[in-house]
Amino acid sequence: SVNVWYDVCQEAKKERTVVDKVFFARILKIVKIMVPGVFCKESGYCLLIAAMLVARTYCDVWMIQNGTMIESAIIGRSTKDFKRLLFNFIKVMPFISLVNNFLKLGLNELKLCCRVRLTKHLYDEYLQGYTYYKIGNLDNRIGNPDQLLTQDVERFCNSVVDLYSNISKPLLDIGLYIFKLTSAIGPQGPACMIGYLVFSGLILTRLRRPIGKMTVMEQRYEGEYRFVNSRLITNSEEIAFYNGNLREKQTIHSTFQKLVDHLHNFIVFRFSTGFVDSIIAKYIATVVGYLVVSRPFLNHTHPRHLRSTHAELLEDYYQSGRMLLSMSQALGRIVLAGREMSRLSGFTARITEIMKVLKELNSGKYERTMISFVTFSDGELQDRITLVPGSGEIIHKDKIIKFEHTPLATPNGDILIKDLSFEVTSGTNVLVCGPNGCGKSSLFRVLGELWPLFGGRLTKPERGKLFYVPQRPYMTLGSLRDQVIYPDTVEDQRRKGTFDKVLKEYLDHVQLGHILEREGSWDTVQDWMDVLSGGEKQRMAMARLFYHKPQFAILDECTSAVSVDVEDFIYKFTCLHLFYIAITQETIAFGS
Amino acid sequence: SVNVWYDVCQEAKKERTVVDKVFFARILKIVKIMVPGVFCKESGYCLLIAAMLVARTYCDVWMIQNGTMIESAIIGRSTKDFKRLLFNFIKVMPFISLVNNFLKLGLNELKLCCRVRLTKHLYDEYLQGYTYYKIGNLDNRIGNPDQLLTQDVERFCNSVVDLYSNISKPLLDIGLYIFKLTSAIGPQGPACMIGYLVFSGLILTRLRRPIGKMTVMEQRYEGEYRFVNSRLITNSEEIAFYNGNLREKQTIHSTFQKLVDHLHNFIVFRFSTGFVDSIIAKYIATVVGYLVVSRPFLNHTHPRHLRSTHAELLEDYYQSGRMLLSMSQALGRIVLAGREMSRLSGFTARITEIMKVLKELNSGKYERTMISFVTFSDGELQDRITLVPGSGEIIHKDKIIKFEHTPLATPNGDILIKDLSFEVTSGTNVLVCGPNGCGKSSLFRVLGELWPLFGGRLTKPERGKLFYVPQRPYMTLGSLRDQVIYPDTVEDQRRKGTFDKVLKEYLDHVQLGHILEREGSWDTVQDWMDVLSGGEKQRMAMARLFYHKPQFAILDECTSAVSVDVEDFIYKFTCLHLFYIAITQETIAFGS
Repeated sequence: SVNVWYDVCQEAKKERTVVDKVFFARILKIVKIMVPGVFCKESGYCLLIAAMLVARTYCDVWMIQNGTMIESAIIGRSTKDFKRLLFNFIKVMPFISLVNNFLKLGLNELKLCCRVRLTKHLYDEYLQGYTYYKIGNLDNRIGNPDQLLTQDVERFCNSVVDLYSNISKPLLDIGLYIFKLTSAIGPQGPACMIGYLVFSGLILTRLRRPIGKMTVMEQRYEGEYRFVNSRLITNSEEIAFYNGNLREKQTIHSTFQKLVDHLHNFIVFRFSTGFVDSIIAKYIATVVGYLVVSRPFLNHTHPRHLRSTHAELLEDYYQSGRMLLSMSQALGRIVLAGREMSRLSGFTARITEIMKVLKELNSGKYERTMISFVTFSDGELQDRITLVPGSGEIIHKDKIIKFEHTPLATPNGDILIKDLSFEVTSGTNVLVCGPNGCGKSSLFRVLGELWPLFGGRLTKPERGKLFYVPQRPYMTLGSLRDQVIYPDTVEDQRRKGTFDKVLKEYLDHVQLGHILEREGSWDTVQDWMDVLSGGEKQRMAMARLFYHKPQFAILDECTSAVSVDVEDFIYKFTCLHLFYIAITQETIAFGS
Repeated sequence: SVNVWYDVCQEAKKERTVVDKVFFARILKIVKIMVPGVFCKESGYCLLIAAMLVARTYCDVWMIQNGTMIESAIIGRSTKDFKRLLFNFIKVMPFISLVNNFLKLGLNELKLCCRVRLTKHLYDEYLQGYTYYKIGNLDNRIGNPDQLLTQDVERFCNSVVDLYSNISKPLLDIGLYIFKLTSAIGPQGPACMIGYLVFSGLILTRLRRPIGKMTVMEQRYEGEYRFVNSRLITNSEEIAFYNGNLREKQTIHSTFQKLVDHLHNFIVFRFSTGFVDSIIAKYIATVVGYLVVSRPFLNHTHPRHLRSTHAELLEDYYQSGRMLLSMSQALGRIVLAGREMSRLSGFTARITEIMKVLKELNSGKYERTMISFVTFSDGELQDRITLVPGSGEIIHKDKIIKFEHTPLATPNGDILIKDLSFEVTSGTNVLVCGPNGCGKSSLFRVLGELWPLFGGRLTKPERGKLFYVPQRPYMTLGSLRDQVIYPDTVEDQRRKGTFDKVLKEYLDHVQLGHILEREGSWDTVQDWMDVLSGGEKQRMAMARLFYHKPQFAILDECTSAVSVDVEDFIYKFTCLHLFYIAITQETIAFGS
């Protein structure tokens, strides 16, 4: 059900990962989710960070000044001054420490808050209806949603907050410097520097373009590597029986090697661009700074310093010259931050992709790479282009199931049955049988509205009134009670007025009463998927059916691991209380 | 099969996560794996990093000096000097940029190399024999091996390399300063500072003690959160049929909330300790530095400066005073790095734990939290304490399977059959049947040596000569050919001399020939687990059986999803070529 394999195979993806208008539009959209309003926790942390960044600058300046004064006192051998200044330092110490730690707190809390908001937003989409099923089974654009929902979201939030703190401080500084410098020495100097910023920014954004794409690939390979690991764990028993460890080792090693090769290339790439990058952004920016600063000084005909004394020059330099240099360094920091932005564009592309896919799935639009054409085993060419997902009509009506000229096709477009028509009215029990691959389980997937209808008309009760008992029943994480009433919660159980005594009866019906006795309480939490055997799980699923009492029950080979005596009992009991459609393995072909 | 749920429930783990002798012993052991010798790539990168750190210091000093000189040239209005100095700066620029980027390259490459070494080492243990199966099924000390093998290993390597770069530079500096200062002003000053380092280090290590444990918890919660995500994907179809999305949302949200609460507490904890931390490590260290530096200056009776002029004082201060202050700052950096060390101790604990468990599993030692006592359904109290895993004897002998007084018990210690004795000789086909939970699958797990023997004697052929066909066959990641010959590789196939034509015959036997025709080639790579239906997978597993031609075949309800006509054919064919033990669902009770 997970399409990672394909996903990574078709490496050339059409994702936009460059820093441009589209990137800013995307990031704005995500930031709006993470910081929903002006008066929220998140904007509070943003303010705190900005304030602490400014406070830290003042602290740094104070520390340097105080340090210089302490040095003078030592050299001047003035014990009194030394003591006073040192005492000053000790007094200010807790404040400086607070500023630094509040800054860290703000950054970390902001990262966490953003992660929580974004995660909750994505889960609201992901767990709406059957979207989590559709994303892996009907659509293959997103290969590994778990990697995206956990690690990518975290890294995106870290990246965006780091970028905020790396950019907000220099931006603040530059604004201040431009204001002060323009009023002191005119707009020419600052304008030159801003010019260089724009020029170098444009060059470097081009140079760094591959970083976004490489970040996307990195995350995808990490996801794939993680996937082969959890796949091994999920199938460990089968693999162990097959002695497949050496074969699996090959797979894991080749996946890991692909990741490592990519990471290695990425490091080398960052080394080579980083070399050019830091020369342009950091060192040439400083050179430009020096050139701008030196102009009025070195040009002896310059009006400003025609008749200046050495002391006046010194004063001018310390007032405007140092400020210009600081500005050039702040500009350099912003250009360097653009590098983090290229990486962020990669994460943004991934988050945007999943948001888009989730939205489209929720509005019923799927996309699946289909094999261009497929022949039936008898050689007949299949015309699957004519099939349009969701083109059929579903009518919700109680106590009837009716297929009218419905084609049965897999999401891949493989046609199983060209034209299916049949009717089951309330009160009849139906047994569906046929060889495998003929479309029995597919029929139920369409009936359960998991698969789209490709045409015709389907009349059926609403989703909640059909209850499906699969062959490998699912046990949720939770208490023993949760297993019986799943997917209801305790509140639902209370509302329905089903007492625990009744639940016990259901367990007894399927000969599982001893589990409650053994565990002692309905609230025992266990890994039930692991603790119960295959047959016990199937029987638990039947108890669940008795609890829910649906209009129709669909039993999909649900007693294959239950011994015949128990099976007989279950079917008899079900017959008395419910209408059901059972599926089983017989030689009679069904449909085709 | 994954015991995360339990694992996180029993939060109080006995892991040592403090920075002490044990920690250093552990980290040394892991570092020896990551840097196996003196002349390897890794130690090369270590040297590169150290060299670049030293070079960077020289660059910084040069930049400051050159900057000051440029400033003087500007203020002195000397165009010639300005040009010369700026030209110098431009000449040195590429070198400085190279140093910085080589440093980054070295750090990143070292992280990657370490990760590769450690990952390969762990996989060699993890994929040896059935260890990957045992870790999840027979032992429950490690809850989420995939989290450990992927993310924890990465974070551990990053943490250890960062620590190396954060510590090696200050250590280098301090060594140099001590040497220079001791010869210049005697050992007293540096000794004072080292004394403070030891003192504050001891206090802070105590204060930071919880960081290690909190790091372990963080990784564990991240693993659990990841686990509920991939669990949802694995079981998406069943959950979708049950309409279980709201119930699963609850589980995911509560798991995520637990992680978020922990991360929040961790942030607040780091804030409060960070406040004290930076005061002690950074600011008081500076104060101590000032006090040590000032002593000979402020004490007017001090022999060193009895008759010094102001210029001499200045020179002395700039030579030894500044060096002392730099030393105090370097000491502060080391004490602060101790913080990263506390975090590293958490990662180290996790890596050590998995290394220990893997080693013990490979030598046949298991540990499983058992429920204290369990009663049979008829009320009889079970005495499971007497069972010792691995106490039975396994004899490898061809063409015979013989159980002699073997108890059949789950790894939990639940006894299924107290005393089992039977014999199957080559040439007989055996059908094992019984109600579920009676121990049919368990019998095969013991036979496949997946479960330990709790007593008695078992005579059987070697592992490779038994072939097991499970109910839900596993499809490996790879080509169509890989599915048929699994777990063999193409080289194995060639060595066995089985031509592709023969493989095609096997596929035809189980009516899967059309798949090859459809795909066109044996080398088509697909997600076969997803592409094949349940019945097709079971038939593929039979084709696999024909290819391997084992002495014994164990068929575990392996045709439950195959239609009866195909099933008949398969059993007939199997009968002619192999001896088999089949398992099926019948009313005849077996064993108990």
